[in-house]
Amino acid sequence: MTEDDDKLFDVLRQGASEADEQEEENPFVLSDQHIEDILEALHSGYDDVVIQKIADLSPAEAADLLEKASEEDRELLLTRHAVAFSAETYSELDPHLQNQMLSKMPPRYVAAIISELDSDDALSLVESLDEDLRKSVIHNLSASTRLALVEGLSYPEYSAGRLMQREFVAIPQFWTVGKTIDYLRAASEDLPDYFYDIFVITPTYRVVGEIPLSRIIRARRSEKIDHLKLEDIHPVPATMNQEEVAQMFRREDITSAPVVDEEDRLIGMITIDDVVDVIDEEAQEDMLHLSGVGESDLYHAVISTASSRFRWLFINLFTAMLAATVISLFSGTIEKLVALAVLMPVVAGMGGNAGTQALAVAVRSLATNELSRVNERRVLLKEVGVGAINGLLFAVMIGVTAGLWFQNPMLGCVIGAAMIINLITAGFFGAFIPIVLDRIGADPAVASSVFLTTMTDIVGFFAFLGLATIFLI
Amino acid sequence: MTEDDDKLFDVLRQGASEADEQEEENPFVLSDQHIEDILEALHSGYDDVVIQKIADLSPAEAADLLEKASEEDRELLLTRHAVAFSAETYSELDPHLQNQMLSKMPPRYVAAIISELDSDDALSLVESLDEDLRKSVIHNLSASTRLALVEGLSYPEYSAGRLMQREFVAIPQFWTVGKTIDYLRAASEDLPDYFYDIFVITPTYRVVGEIPLSRIIRARRSEKIDHLKLEDIHPVPATMNQEEVAQMFRREDITSAPVVDEEDRLIGMITIDDVVDVIDEEAQEDMLHLSGVGESDLYHAVISTASSRFRWLFINLFTAMLAATVISLFSGTIEKLVALAVLMPVVAGMGGNAGTQALAVAVRSLATNELSRVNERRVLLKEVGVGAINGLLFAVMIGVTAGLWFQNPMLGCVIGAAMIINLITAGFFGAFIPIVLDRIGADPAVASSVFLTTMTDIVGFFAFLGLATIFLI
Repeated sequence: MTEDDDKLFDVLRQGASEADEQEEENPFVLSDQHIEDILEALHSGYDDVVIQKIADLSPAEAADLLEKASEEDRELLLTRHAVAFSAETYSELDPHLQNQMLSKMPPRYVAAIISELDSDDALSLVESLDEDLRKSVIHNLSASTRLALVEGLSYPEYSAGRLMQREFVAIPQFWTVGKTIDYLRAASEDLPDYFYDIFVITPTYRVVGEIPLSRIIRARRSEKIDHLKLEDIHPVPATMNQEEVAQMFRREDITSAPVVDEEDRLIGMITIDDVVDVIDEEAQEDMLHLSGVGESDLYHAVISTASSRFRWLFINLFTAMLAATVISLFSGTIEKLVALAVLMPVVAGMGGNAGTQALAVAVRSLATNELSRVNERRVLLKEVGVGAINGLLFAVMIGVTAGLWFQNPMLGCVIGAAMIINLITAGFFGAFIPIVLDRIGADPAVASSVFLTTMTDIVGFFAFLGLATIFLI
Repeated sequence: MTEDDDKLFDVLRQGASEADEQEEENPFVLSDQHIEDILEALHSGYDDVVIQKIADLSPAEAADLLEKASEEDRELLLTRHAVAFSAETYSELDPHLQNQMLSKMPPRYVAAIISELDSDDALSLVESLDEDLRKSVIHNLSASTRLALVEGLSYPEYSAGRLMQREFVAIPQFWTVGKTIDYLRAASEDLPDYFYDIFVITPTYRVVGEIPLSRIIRARRSEKIDHLKLEDIHPVPATMNQEEVAQMFRREDITSAPVVDEEDRLIGMITIDDVVDVIDEEAQEDMLHLSGVGESDLYHAVISTASSRFRWLFINLFTAMLAATVISLFSGTIEKLVALAVLMPVVAGMGGNAGTQALAVAVRSLATNELSRVNERRVLLKEVGVGAINGLLFAVMIGVTAGLWFQNPMLGCVIGAAMIINLITAGFFGAFIPIVLDRIGADPAVASSVFLTTMTDIVGFFAFLGLATIFLI
């Protein structure tokens, strides 16, 4: 296998010169060349060079380096140069690698990393740790950080409470712009590094308005906060799911939102940079789920990848056996006319593909809430129409081809009819299955495609072989 | 069909009561009930009510209403109540509907809408118009808006130049904080509504630094801009692809970036709210492309949906016929042992599913640049390993099942061996195909799955039927 492998890699290498130029154009990603230089210095034992090169990287770039290094190199980098990586590097890492790398460190060292991070980043790092390590790490933290983390962990996973940071700027509504700016100058040390809005609160910490910095900075000192504040605020309950939070940010074009507890008191702030990651993750999840992968397993080891993908394939084996059972009902027919065996995967496959098209659009539209009760009937009828039109077109094509190929016009008619039936079925169920799954509270991206291909396989084989039994035998 | 349809809809309706409660929980999406209320008022001719209700909606909600209304209702809303919708509503609409609705309006009216929008929103609205209408709309604009739009259109599609807004705040580096704030107060009318960073420039408009508002607002009036500015800026060339821009924003956690022309002069600004939409679109595109859909066609009519999906299905018909040809080579074998026809879709199908898992992870990792030359060899070898492990497990399962079902142990061995071969093939090509497509500059999400299922079908049928011919006949 190695020789064949090497040939394949040569093909890749030939294309590499072009690709390198392309990569050079994107200055925001750590280039392969750069990574190789660092790893070479590492292998040659030039520790000073390695430390200097790592120090020059941004946290995202340093995370790139760790992610793309082989497991041995990663180990080497960590045992020799752990200090060279900033705390932020670890929070930029893929969660699976985060867990893997932090579990190898002494809890006290992990605690030191966490203490250096903002409260939201610290929380998401702690989340990725295994229960045991998490406990001993939390034990090693200062009382205030510990308290904040434990409270953060008390919110449900993937909730606004986990996403928020506890640092924010809030002022009473009776202040003026001048007083606010004086306060910000005096309290400078205690403020978060970056913020985009100032929240206006009552003495009991209820949010009554917000002022974007770009609004306050151009106002005169004498202006009253009460007049300046925008009242169209979007307070987020701490228990709200992060996906809904992300949808709100995207729809309303806002940059930060106040998070409130069940008594409507301000307890934190969510900023758009955290939301960007959520949007990205959620869209990625839908795509991976549709393809039968739970989460990106790029950094998982072979065994753990194989076992996490096994479940989906196992379910698919069942549905494939179901389809095989349908075929076996028609063994007698196939024995008499073997052309049926040749053509039957075409009918089933085209149904699967057409259904997947309808499915992808429906799953995506449900996720963005563009598809809901009010227009679902219209969408279903439309998919039936689309299936009918394309079914008719492909019926003619496959019918003529099959008729000529096997010199059997009736076979052409039968496969054409089966194609129409299966493409209409595919269109309808491609939209119907995700709508129903969404309605009963299941994630449409996870299970839709199994149900769909089961449908299109069974209907495809049944229609084709059934019609053949009636009209050809 | 209607009766069956109605039964299916009854199933949906039964679940609806629960779902309504769920919807109530998400206050950021226009509820179905709300939409139905407005449409009912529209049908009953209560124009005052309709106008009032539309006026109460945010632009994103008004766009929801137009998107979810049927074509006739949409027409009715526009002919009777066009004035009730704000200009921003149109820029929130799905691009396809944007085009459809604006094409029906007089160019002068479209020009009036565009004049009210920010430069970036105006540009993206003009982009969606057909060539002819675009010309006459631009003709109806004021000279300054026209000039800005024509220059914007001169940048390539999906580039930073199209994404940016021309309104930004830039100051010379020799100013102080006090002078800057005085300037912002005096120039308040001419500034963009929202901005998060102030760019620091030389007299020739070269960007030398930037200052987040949260940094300047807490600084003392006497502080020098030159000392306060951050030099770690991320100037974006106007021709850079929007996907790279989005990746940079996501990686570096920034909220705005200066856009520069080929002479490095500041010409615009990109803010994170525009980038959020790009991230969302790009992730959505990958998912739809993988499923054989070019773009979300939820709002397309039946005919246009059918024709846009036709191309992908047509390609799939070809590859399915290729697989059929492989089967036909073994007609003689199948005639002698019809169990082969029953089992062969299982082998091909499992390969397709396992390959799709590897494919989805690879496509996604290529998009986020987590997979590149430096680790591609490792990823390929890993996928081969995963294929071998799962291949072995499923070989045992299907082998035993098939052997018992058809009382033929040798048949069990043959299908087991074919399963191993096909799952290894699937794993390897699932990663290899997108890597190669990416290398030669093609979009891996678009064509990967056709190539993959062709491979897994052909290898699956060939291995199973070939081994059967050798060992069973």
